[in-house]
Amino acid sequence: MATIEDVAKLAGLSRSTVSRVLNNHPYVTDEKKRLVYEAMKQLEYYPNSSAQRLRTQKTDTIAVLVPRLTNPFFPFLIEGLEMIAVKYGFQLLICQTHHDKEKELSFLNLLLTKQVDGLIFTAIENDWATIDSFKTYGPMILCNEYMSEATVPIVRLDQVKGSYLGTRHLIEKGHKEIAYCGGTSSELGIDREQGFRKALAESGLVVNEKWLFRDLYSIECGKTLLRKLVEMDHRPSAIFTGSDEVAAGIIREAKNHKIRIPNELAVIGFDDQPIAELLEPSLTTIRQPTRDMGMKTMELMLAMLANPNMNEARQIIELPIQVISRESV
Amino acid sequence: MATIEDVAKLAGLSRSTVSRVLNNHPYVTDEKKRLVYEAMKQLEYYPNSSAQRLRTQKTDTIAVLVPRLTNPFFPFLIEGLEMIAVKYGFQLLICQTHHDKEKELSFLNLLLTKQVDGLIFTAIENDWATIDSFKTYGPMILCNEYMSEATVPIVRLDQVKGSYLGTRHLIEKGHKEIAYCGGTSSELGIDREQGFRKALAESGLVVNEKWLFRDLYSIECGKTLLRKLVEMDHRPSAIFTGSDEVAAGIIREAKNHKIRIPNELAVIGFDDQPIAELLEPSLTTIRQPTRDMGMKTMELMLAMLANPNMNEARQIIELPIQVISRESV
Repeated sequence: MATIEDVAKLAGLSRSTVSRVLNNHPYVTDEKKRLVYEAMKQLEYYPNSSAQRLRTQKTDTIAVLVPRLTNPFFPFLIEGLEMIAVKYGFQLLICQTHHDKEKELSFLNLLLTKQVDGLIFTAIENDWATIDSFKTYGPMILCNEYMSEATVPIVRLDQVKGSYLGTRHLIEKGHKEIAYCGGTSSELGIDREQGFRKALAESGLVVNEKWLFRDLYSIECGKTLLRKLVEMDHRPSAIFTGSDEVAAGIIREAKNHKIRIPNELAVIGFDDQPIAELLEPSLTTIRQPTRDMGMKTMELMLAMLANPNMNEARQIIELPIQVISRESV
Repeated sequence: MATIEDVAKLAGLSRSTVSRVLNNHPYVTDEKKRLVYEAMKQLEYYPNSSAQRLRTQKTDTIAVLVPRLTNPFFPFLIEGLEMIAVKYGFQLLICQTHHDKEKELSFLNLLLTKQVDGLIFTAIENDWATIDSFKTYGPMILCNEYMSEATVPIVRLDQVKGSYLGTRHLIEKGHKEIAYCGGTSSELGIDREQGFRKALAESGLVVNEKWLFRDLYSIECGKTLLRKLVEMDHRPSAIFTGSDEVAAGIIREAKNHKIRIPNELAVIGFDDQPIAELLEPSLTTIRQPTRDMGMKTMELMLAMLANPNMNEARQIIELPIQVISRESV
């Protein structure tokens, strides 16, 4: 049976170069890669990564837990994570939890069984107490969603500020009767509602509890919400939503009910997904620097892998957020 | 050091039940999982998956190669793949090629180094000759994009029929001057163009070479294309596009140039992504059964893993395709 030394000899390269090619390290020329692959083929040599992993205890793989990929926010976040990961020869294992606690636990198992070196949460389904025990098996980061009990680093946006700015934008445009429509019931969701309430309170406006809606996250949710609003005796003049998808559903369904946006109902989204600019009227929304957040998170993960003691240091990295004014308000 | 037998004893379960929990097998009750995790924690036992993998030569992981996740077509395809995979205790390793040949090769390496059990291409960057040599390391399937030289199973849609039906729809609505705008230059792209040409030829219409555009795939591409059309002395009355994203870009930019859709320019998309229904006017498009295609592909992959000889049998599974008529034509 051929060995890695045989491959190196036939390819005319050093053993360490062959090893770099096999481990997908960056900065190896295409020509060297070609020589190694050819030698491997000729010798019918193939390395067994499991044996390699057993030796090095490293997988060069990071698990990324997302609720669902069909929400465009997450593919853009992953794009940011990946831009940094590939530069350093790491790969991502993308895991969809579909908001399921058990699935999240089974993915945490990846860390425990050393199938990944580290793990990034973009949403959280279980209590921190449940998650915390996995910390000993490798570095974890919360990115996007967060928990105050968490004892791992957090990369997030100032969500209170985001919804505060959005709501203030509605108030500045003369709206006094404003509905709120939130997504996740995690701390991120609580903070967004707090920002909404803060903006209203500052202007002496009252929160109408009948106009508070929670756990809405899809285009379909937005459509259903609009139909609910239509049936009300007294409708709000504006609505703050926690998602461009929900806002898109509201705008779409408003057409069916001949409700003019923004004249009869102003709508503000959250995220600034590509869809925001394409809607008619185009969507005023709160831009999250999604790609940047992914990049920052992966840089931090690589630093944690290089220096395991960092894991203990609880740090919060907060990125800026801003209102993008278009036609829906 | 604790062994798996110690865990089984403390948990009061059989060794095989503990093993099923560790391998994320379905059909294990939550209570049993809890008992196993507790025993593991108490004994400070953790299994090393690399050792397990080395023994079984199985990873229960399937690599899925996609060009980019930010095109919503791929998240929906992945959703279908995953629906079947999780049912059988498999996980997906999602790999973005960003249309890069070298990246595709490095992901093929996953099969060679036994980091995955099988590999699914949703797009193809290298020649078949290059890819073919990896076939000996595990089952591969082409899903969505395809190649006639390929000697592995293919799950796809009838792309000739898709663009033929779409173009015929434009002709039936009275259009004679029709532009074509294609995406990938793979066989899928060639087939789509063939369907377009077939529909035109059948109605005695001539293809205007100045109105053929290729390699367009994003919202930005659609906007640029519309600006090109505006500058033409003689414009087409309708345009067939190979992507809802391109169609969305055309519709968006048409607004800036005060070109009325569909009166001055009819537009037909491809995919039926969520965006299609949200655009104003809403987008007539060709619906691909994306989720179903993912599900069929994963079923086939699992069958191939269970029966390695199937790999040799070249089969083509073709799913139906249809025009969804909305307002943009």
